[in-house]
Amino acid sequence: MRLFSPYYIGIMTGTSMDAIDVVIARFGDEPEVTSEYSAPIPSDLRPLLMDLASQEKIDIDLFVRMHFILAQAYADAVDSALRKAGLSADDIRAIGLHGQTIRHLPKPLKISGSLPAAGATFQLGSGPALAALTGIDVISDFRSADITLGGEGAPLVPMFDYRFLRSESHNRIVLNIGGIANLTYLPAKCREEDVLAFDTGPGNMILDALAREYFGKDYDEGGALAEGGRLDEGLLTQLLSNQYFSEPPPKSTGRELFGKTFVERIRSLITENSLSPQDALRVATELTAQSIAQAFELLPQESLKAHPTEIIASGGGVKNIFLCKRIGDLLPHIKFRISDEVGIPSQAKEALAFALFAKAFLDGSHIHLPKTTGASKKIILGSLSHGK
Amino acid sequence: MRLFSPYYIGIMTGTSMDAIDVVIARFGDEPEVTSEYSAPIPSDLRPLLMDLASQEKIDIDLFVRMHFILAQAYADAVDSALRKAGLSADDIRAIGLHGQTIRHLPKPLKISGSLPAAGATFQLGSGPALAALTGIDVISDFRSADITLGGEGAPLVPMFDYRFLRSESHNRIVLNIGGIANLTYLPAKCREEDVLAFDTGPGNMILDALAREYFGKDYDEGGALAEGGRLDEGLLTQLLSNQYFSEPPPKSTGRELFGKTFVERIRSLITENSLSPQDALRVATELTAQSIAQAFELLPQESLKAHPTEIIASGGGVKNIFLCKRIGDLLPHIKFRISDEVGIPSQAKEALAFALFAKAFLDGSHIHLPKTTGASKKIILGSLSHGK
Repeated sequence: MRLFSPYYIGIMTGTSMDAIDVVIARFGDEPEVTSEYSAPIPSDLRPLLMDLASQEKIDIDLFVRMHFILAQAYADAVDSALRKAGLSADDIRAIGLHGQTIRHLPKPLKISGSLPAAGATFQLGSGPALAALTGIDVISDFRSADITLGGEGAPLVPMFDYRFLRSESHNRIVLNIGGIANLTYLPAKCREEDVLAFDTGPGNMILDALAREYFGKDYDEGGALAEGGRLDEGLLTQLLSNQYFSEPPPKSTGRELFGKTFVERIRSLITENSLSPQDALRVATELTAQSIAQAFELLPQESLKAHPTEIIASGGGVKNIFLCKRIGDLLPHIKFRISDEVGIPSQAKEALAFALFAKAFLDGSHIHLPKTTGASKKIILGSLSHGK
Repeated sequence: MRLFSPYYIGIMTGTSMDAIDVVIARFGDEPEVTSEYSAPIPSDLRPLLMDLASQEKIDIDLFVRMHFILAQAYADAVDSALRKAGLSADDIRAIGLHGQTIRHLPKPLKISGSLPAAGATFQLGSGPALAALTGIDVISDFRSADITLGGEGAPLVPMFDYRFLRSESHNRIVLNIGGIANLTYLPAKCREEDVLAFDTGPGNMILDALAREYFGKDYDEGGALAEGGRLDEGLLTQLLSNQYFSEPPPKSTGRELFGKTFVERIRSLITENSLSPQDALRVATELTAQSIAQAFELLPQESLKAHPTEIIASGGGVKNIFLCKRIGDLLPHIKFRISDEVGIPSQAKEALAFALFAKAFLDGSHIHLPKTTGASKKIILGSLSHGK
């Protein structure tokens, strides 16, 4: 099998907009990661992307050009990843491209009297442009069809989790802490229809924004700054009262809810309460940890009790030791494991999932799971652009 | 052949934004049009689209939602076309969707010091959304890869013209008068590499805008209003001095150059020169006719002389009898024919071309022609989204 199994590339840039994660992999019974590569988003590009994601009005010429410029940055990252792996474009069957989410608006809204209400989502980084630049087939735009069918357009990674992380003996809560944190619940011995998944709320997004704002750092390394701060319980309670945390799944969120406006609210509350920058990181870290722990209450409690449960964690957030410790403390009966321990690279898991989704498109396989997005039916997700 | 040849749908909404043209066809040695259907763009949608196309800054939420709402309008038009033809979604192999061009910026431009220059184009109307709504495979986004390869992203219809309109005995100038007017030059007995094509400049775009502005009509029916106006030669000379008209091909244009700003300039010149509304239509009609006629000077004159030449005209503009008469008067040695005379429906030609391009994508065929877009190499154009 291995000899004839082709390589796939997955590309992920999450809501934290800190890096372009590229993974090269083959898929048999297990995913076999050939190479991981993380390219910084070009320094001139990041503030432009942040602007697009946070501003209400944008220059449409710029927006449209960015779609192509970001594709160029992805192509450069693919080129570097291929060189690192000693492979060429001809070795790759296809690229699965997530793209950079600029808007994710799953709730249908009427914009004018006679027009139908519609949900919407948009990932920047043109698929056909990337295909033309790399000479490799690209599958992109994985979320639009799901939203059109009434789904949340997210999460999509649960199919990957189901395929490669379900266990016969343990309930597994697959937790990815990116800019946003999300979980996939895989009861022991589960079938497709038992899988539950949703965004729990903020992951690193608020922490990174505060680290940048107060300390000029890209992130709070290991969570050390937060650990040295004092926890303001009143402020924590106030932040945890956000109704998103108690909403039942399916649900998904992003920068719209926990982006710039939310961070600004925290900052003004910090100032009002005369708290220190480290206190700010402390309360935000606790908000992330507790919103994740609270999300476990939204899972079916009977099945949770039926088998021992373990967390399989991935994403940039697992490097935040203090955050992981807090999650572990809040959930003392649940074993906290990093996904690398079970063969899935924690820093490349989402990129790896999109490599699998490229393969699924070409295989004609569905990556939809009932209950996870809420879409009315299964459909093959993604759009194929040829590289030649 | 006919028995097993599947149906394809083509959807076109041009720069004039007046209608959604849908065609259902099969392709053998000749295209066989099963049904033509033209749906008005929903009245609440058109001004929003015009705003997107003409304004510099836009509300990004609205923009992203419009991508999905327009897909819904396309889906409704497909549904009506199917009912009219007595066919169901299962009878259709694929839809070729042009989408509504919002920006077409083929010239690479640097937006920031360290970022690469990039051309760009964007067609509104999500392919995956339309596929999900109709249950039919959709191929969309035909222009992006070409622009990425340094091409103009246009024109694409010449491959259709080459395949179905080249003649052994006549040079043919295939002229489409939509919002923008474009031509494909097919020398008698030509090979692919002999084909030349480019946008000549405005088609109905300026005429429709003036008809709306001065007379509250969607267009100047038959060109009767223009015909009753007086031609101001000085103003005509001034308008014809636009350097686009003399630029050598490959070249393409759109609402950026001949849209709102251009129309406003004409209107202020009309006021300055105390001309009547009918005079305005007269000079604009003459501008369209003469810019088309002048474009013939950009064609290789030797081959034009080697065989008799005929114009094969299509697009909304062929309904403007006065405009067609003026073109004919300016080119007395060239026979002016409407494409219906040679078996191609003049009002559905562009939609029909995109139906063919859907088939070409699935066949793995190139629709690129050398010299027409200027792209550095051939690539399969379009992105495939599955309907199931």
